Amino acid sequence: MQISKFMTPEIIFGNQSLRQVGESLRRLGATRVFIVSDPGVENAGWIERIIHYLGQQNLDYFLWTQITANPKDHEVHAGVAEYRARECNAILGVGGGSAVDAAKAIALLGTNDGSIVQYEGVDKIEHPLPPMVMVPTTAGSGSEVSQFSIIVDSERKVKMAIISKSLIPDIAIIDPQTLMTKDKQLTANTGMDVLTHAIESYISLAATPLTEVHSLQAMRLIANHLRPSVASCYNAEAKQAMAMASLQAGIAFSNAILGAVHAMSHQLGGFLDAPHGEVNAILLPYVLEYNYIAAPEKYRQIAECLGESTAGLSSHDASRLTLKAVKDLARDLDIPESLSAIGLQPEQIPLLSEHAILDVCMTTNPRDMSANDVAALFQQAL
Amino acid sequence: MQISKFMTPEIIFGNQSLRQVGESLRRLGATRVFIVSDPGVENAGWIERIIHYLGQQNLDYFLWTQITANPKDHEVHAGVAEYRARECNAILGVGGGSAVDAAKAIALLGTNDGSIVQYEGVDKIEHPLPPMVMVPTTAGSGSEVSQFSIIVDSERKVKMAIISKSLIPDIAIIDPQTLMTKDKQLTANTGMDVLTHAIESYISLAATPLTEVHSLQAMRLIANHLRPSVASCYNAEAKQAMAMASLQAGIAFSNAILGAVHAMSHQLGGFLDAPHGEVNAILLPYVLEYNYIAAPEKYRQIAECLGESTAGLSSHDASRLTLKAVKDLARDLDIPESLSAIGLQPEQIPLLSEHAILDVCMTTNPRDMSANDVAALFQQAL
Ligand SMILES: [Fe+2]
Ligand SMILES: [Fe+2]
Repeated sequence: MQISKFMTPEIIFGNQSLRQVGESLRRLGATRVFIVSDPGVENAGWIERIIHYLGQQNLDYFLWTQITANPKDHEVHAGVAEYRARECNAILGVGGGSAVDAAKAIALLGTNDGSIVQYEGVDKIEHPLPPMVMVPTTAGSGSEVSQFSIIVDSERKVKMAIISKSLIPDIAIIDPQTLMTKDKQLTANTGMDVLTHAIESYISLAATPLTEVHSLQAMRLIANHLRPSVASCYNAEAKQAMAMASLQAGIAFSNAILGAVHAMSHQLGGFLDAPHGEVNAILLPYVLEYNYIAAPEKYRQIAECLGESTAGLSSHDASRLTLKAVKDLARDLDIPESLSAIGLQPEQIPLLSEHAILDVCMTTNPRDMSANDVAALFQQAL
Repeated sequence: MQISKFMTPEIIFGNQSLRQVGESLRRLGATRVFIVSDPGVENAGWIERIIHYLGQQNLDYFLWTQITANPKDHEVHAGVAEYRARECNAILGVGGGSAVDAAKAIALLGTNDGSIVQYEGVDKIEHPLPPMVMVPTTAGSGSEVSQFSIIVDSERKVKMAIISKSLIPDIAIIDPQTLMTKDKQLTANTGMDVLTHAIESYISLAATPLTEVHSLQAMRLIANHLRPSVASCYNAEAKQAMAMASLQAGIAFSNAILGAVHAMSHQLGGFLDAPHGEVNAILLPYVLEYNYIAAPEKYRQIAECLGESTAGLSSHDASRLTLKAVKDLARDLDIPESLSAIGLQPEQIPLLSEHAILDVCMTTNPRDMSANDVAALFQQAL
């Protein structure tokens, strides 16, 4: 039996939980808070409300919104210079996965020297990070509970996965009311990303009984609520369920890591600056088809959680239902079926494949993969 | 929607995980470790191994084994005096629920003034506790992951529940190899205590989607592994599964709290010094019978997880199968059916019932209870 480790932040989940942001930071010893966000979140009015809650606790702040989707190393470096210049002593990330990942990377360099590029990989962080509170405003990345930060190395044009327990925030505040995205496509893509987190963490070589329950529950919530969530931006019940699915998948993948879908999409995200959720959504069915011989009985469980009935079926036939369920869902949500739609050129595949097999998420993929295997999958998905 | 909170320690689970005890304490900044344990654990050789691992990290220590089952306030006070006199700066609890609860209470008074009695109830702790690592050696209490410490007020002869996030240890190390109990009755009783944690946390008014998955998984593990675990003390697979069940139930009840079984058994444990697991095992079927109208659909889920087939049954009939499953299990394990067997006298019931409705675990019981209702249940179980 291998040793399994499990760690989560303190989690506060529910409507109006945003009100606890000031008290949460105060309790961690913050006096001057560096808020990392993006202009979209600011325009939606959430920053204004948060500043009000910080004021109630007599907390000073500085707001930093100079980050983009797929946050870049130089943005992190600019952020940390400002964090230091403003003499802040805590980090608050507010936004989608990009804002939260950038906030974690800035926190990392707040107490550790050098360039963010030096910290790529597992357990490279030496000194404890400043207190961190994260408030996600899209249901998807799970970064608010994870030990991951994904930052683009702008020179090599790859997404670096930085993984360390030190990157787990102290407190994650998930208020489903902030999940205000009205964009149908973004809801579909981030939902498929959550499904990818749930499935890849479940079939991961590092899955444990503590992570599996969260992976499976995320799948059940997605099966019941992702379609309605895409159908109407006013369906509060569906939004709330997807927020919970994202949270549970995040807990699972933070502790069980991911697999080949993420290893591959990290390369495309760095290279084409393509949306993470969309790339994953396209790749998922192809990788699932490849991986299924690694874990037929787990695929049966996945199929059941996705609403298929596997009673009386052989292991082979049951596991194939997982592929059907995922493809049905992707089709219902109008997910594109090919990577050429987002700009991938065939001649780029060999280099991306070489990079993908070096990604840390590849180490827990349940079926072995060579660069040629990856290239073949990129080719199928082209 | 209510706001749900969720918090666990860092968890390290698996055979040989005991080896990480020194590194875990060092990483928390410990230099001189106060070890709280009991003579039985010391005789089994675990302390010797632990001291070896502490030495590898150049950690100093002082060993304190002057605690009894159902740890008493004066034992905690004696322990903290020694903790201070020895100038320790971290706490390591090694043993069953009693040792771990005592270790947490000593940690509490290590940084907070006064008597442990002042801290009864919810959120009474002011100052952060010293670093705490817990190593459970019986699968049962879940205290190594919980925000509870249960200490006997020796004057009032009641068990006090002290509840605070501050009581969640920093790191819980669960090495199934240390679950060496060869006592069939203890295995059965602690196993039924784990079942009680799983069920009471699941039907608790404070249950959340994050706790429910752990409650249900604990039930599945108990249904499959408790009987074999009692049958043979050499069945390593069953012991390991029960350790995981205890852990998952502990995560669930720490965040969702418990119910009337624990509210009632805390009184008997304080009054008669009776084993916690045995009292719970006797009370569980009676309280389940009382509570079932509060949550028939949840009872259906419980029945399914305990191995009953509820397909095609009405809500009423399905929920009744939970009672059958629990009673079958208790009978298979030779759990006594009455409290008089452990020394309860009828004339003691009124006072115990008055105390029980004041216990903090009663606040999350899904069906309202007056002192008369409690007395009637004690009477049935007599
Ligand atoms: Fe992702
Ligand atoms: Fe208990």
